[in-house]
Amino acid sequence: MGNFSITSIMGDEELVTKELVSNCLTTSFDQIPDEVKTHGKLSLLNWLGVTIGAANDRSIDMLVDLSKELQSAEQVSLYGRDEKVDLLMGVLINGTASHIFDYDDTHLDTIHHPSGPIAPVVLALGEHLNLSGEEILHAFIVGCEAELRIANAVYPSHYQLGWHITSTTGVFGAAIAAGLLLELDEERMSWSLGIAGTQSSGLREVFGTMTKPFHPGKAAQNGLLAALLAKRGFTSSEQILEAKRGFANVLAPEHDLSKVNSNWGFEWELAKNSFKPYACGIVLHPSIDACIHLKQEVDEKDLEYIELKVNPYVLELTGKQNPKTGLEGKFSIYFTGAVSFLTGDASEKQYTDENVKDPAIVELQSKIRVVVDEMMKEEEVLAKAVLHDGTSIVYEVKHAKGSLGNPMTLEDIIHKFKGLASDVLSNETESDRLIHNILNLERVESVKELTGR
Amino acid sequence: MGNFSITSIMGDEELVTKELVSNCLTTSFDQIPDEVKTHGKLSLLNWLGVTIGAANDRSIDMLVDLSKELQSAEQVSLYGRDEKVDLLMGVLINGTASHIFDYDDTHLDTIHHPSGPIAPVVLALGEHLNLSGEEILHAFIVGCEAELRIANAVYPSHYQLGWHITSTTGVFGAAIAAGLLLELDEERMSWSLGIAGTQSSGLREVFGTMTKPFHPGKAAQNGLLAALLAKRGFTSSEQILEAKRGFANVLAPEHDLSKVNSNWGFEWELAKNSFKPYACGIVLHPSIDACIHLKQEVDEKDLEYIELKVNPYVLELTGKQNPKTGLEGKFSIYFTGAVSFLTGDASEKQYTDENVKDPAIVELQSKIRVVVDEMMKEEEVLAKAVLHDGTSIVYEVKHAKGSLGNPMTLEDIIHKFKGLASDVLSNETESDRLIHNILNLERVESVKELTGR
Repeated sequence: MGNFSITSIMGDEELVTKELVSNCLTTSFDQIPDEVKTHGKLSLLNWLGVTIGAANDRSIDMLVDLSKELQSAEQVSLYGRDEKVDLLMGVLINGTASHIFDYDDTHLDTIHHPSGPIAPVVLALGEHLNLSGEEILHAFIVGCEAELRIANAVYPSHYQLGWHITSTTGVFGAAIAAGLLLELDEERMSWSLGIAGTQSSGLREVFGTMTKPFHPGKAAQNGLLAALLAKRGFTSSEQILEAKRGFANVLAPEHDLSKVNSNWGFEWELAKNSFKPYACGIVLHPSIDACIHLKQEVDEKDLEYIELKVNPYVLELTGKQNPKTGLEGKFSIYFTGAVSFLTGDASEKQYTDENVKDPAIVELQSKIRVVVDEMMKEEEVLAKAVLHDGTSIVYEVKHAKGSLGNPMTLEDIIHKFKGLASDVLSNETESDRLIHNILNLERVESVKELTGR
Repeated sequence: MGNFSITSIMGDEELVTKELVSNCLTTSFDQIPDEVKTHGKLSLLNWLGVTIGAANDRSIDMLVDLSKELQSAEQVSLYGRDEKVDLLMGVLINGTASHIFDYDDTHLDTIHHPSGPIAPVVLALGEHLNLSGEEILHAFIVGCEAELRIANAVYPSHYQLGWHITSTTGVFGAAIAAGLLLELDEERMSWSLGIAGTQSSGLREVFGTMTKPFHPGKAAQNGLLAALLAKRGFTSSEQILEAKRGFANVLAPEHDLSKVNSNWGFEWELAKNSFKPYACGIVLHPSIDACIHLKQEVDEKDLEYIELKVNPYVLELTGKQNPKTGLEGKFSIYFTGAVSFLTGDASEKQYTDENVKDPAIVELQSKIRVVVDEMMKEEEVLAKAVLHDGTSIVYEVKHAKGSLGNPMTLEDIIHKFKGLASDVLSNETESDRLIHNILNLERVESVKELTGR
């Protein structure tokens, strides 16, 4: 790993972008540890499952309808659908689909969904340029690593201000991943980051609407566009991360850009990626674990209330009191607690427009009380069921299912994939073929095989 | 004008987005004063001239090359070129072309180039949907009004932080203009603004590269995309401007959202739009006026130095000491002062890669001294030529040519248009036809006539 620059050790923030570019361009596939490669493949498999599962969502129908108005060329696949669209439209649509269920992967340190902006880019470019499985896995891992390190550098102030960190930093990772596949040199890779960074966007205000999942799709599209233009010599800033009026200074009140390159090649942020057993924001998962457990000990007719003690972020993100749609239900700890208690799960099938109107669930959600405590970690909950007779049952979750301390296994992820794909793909053979190809991605000669079209 | 809401008078910032939508949807073409309509047409004519003039720029070749890789459908015209591309690609390319020369219009209060993100949208949608000249002029004026009022609300803190206000607020105007032409109702127009606002982007760090002109093009494309999705029912925030994690709170450290709707229909920001006689940022224009004047009184062989006393912003924006390209020359008061003194003009023909290397110009630019003074307005300069013999000549510009106090006339703008178009369009007849059609836009039955294709 002799090519890794030592600038970060010297703390020279003036060279952050240049050093990141150098790191990304000199990290060969062989230098990536096997466990990171495995985690990369699991991330892609998980991404593909949630994308296929949401392929027929109304919002995806709208995007496909738009692509028809634009007479988009049939260049790349839409996962879980029969249509093909042009390269840039494809990454927008697939990237959007992947986040619709809020069921995708999460880098817990930054509440970031790393695959969303990167996977659609490497898969679509791989199909468009007839690249190998190894090439796209390489670009995927390096792209994720770049976006997550940028996220580390600006979290939490950037997120707290109101930016959706998945898209704002994802656009850089998409530009890196695309730039690697397009074989950009150092200068053009810097421009690619410049063009990407100036498109960085995504406000948390739109959470709870169709525009939230649009974010990773747009970041993917913007990052790919950046690389496609840089490839042609389209000039841009070469210091977009660290410049006075660049990304960090403008979008993050506090930041530490030394995190972007420090220990590059020795520590891997993608290895910290986690997968969701439940179809909502990760911050709700401990509460779901607890409610599912409490149901085994308590009959709802005896229940006075359930108290959930959580980190303040949990309530900030999911404090919606009376959700009106299934989608809004994902942003309601009250609905989520009630529905997971009553049904024993919180998969996509729980978050329906019917369920948020179900009288039994609505009644129970009025019994969910939330207490915030800064001492609680985001992956923890201290739950207490208080019964009519005054007795109470306490249940503590230290590591929610799906968190790094209690990760989903390969079998869990395959099970999740099949559950998501079963209603969409024509038969189980296609599902099995996709799983096999992703898990053996280094040996797939052409991404066209992967998509099978 | 009885439909105009009075909410703004009550200062209720909770309803800013809703009120803006209502104002935009209820402002009929007949309610727009004639002088504003005229100013709208002059803005479009000026925009078309600078767009055609830059149509063969290398960066536009790159975008067109990309559209070929994407097999973009032949839906709308590229002004000054023979190719046609799809609707979304068309607004990106035309919008980018319009800002390449930095020769477009400027709303002086906010250093905003209002036509850039709006004109490409109304022209492309007009061509795509076969709309009338009156319809697109109406949408253009209301869209510009919306973006400029949002700009007023966040300027200067937003701009000072590092945002390129033309694109960050332009995306809203584009979404409004497109939404009007797509006949969105109130709810969908709100969503259009939500989808637009979450794509708001553009960092000043990229100034001096090809990515600066990319900004209005991308804002136009993002705003149009927002309206096309909202038209299909794609949901989003309905309070994107004022929400806690919405546009103003996240992107502007200080803001006054009451400016968005106050006196809507009575005061017109578009009427304050100005046009540039010179092919660089407006803040350089007073200095150019002064240098051109001083040349009439001073022979350069007698010149010790020229001192330019300017507003601090001028140096912040154009302080580049040794530009290496014609484009960089536009961000150098030193080069600009020297070349305008020596040649008597600062049109696109002055800002060439050859001129920045010309020894006579390079020598003279070392004699340009800049003094900043907060008391100076941005449209002013106090220039002093000091000669070898110790004598000095002072020349003061209070209102630069092209500013509101000294505006370009219709004849000036037609002359500018013809100068820009002459090298690009096949013959003068085509130029005359475009000028005639824009100046009589209300009577043009179909935008297809305008483009003549």
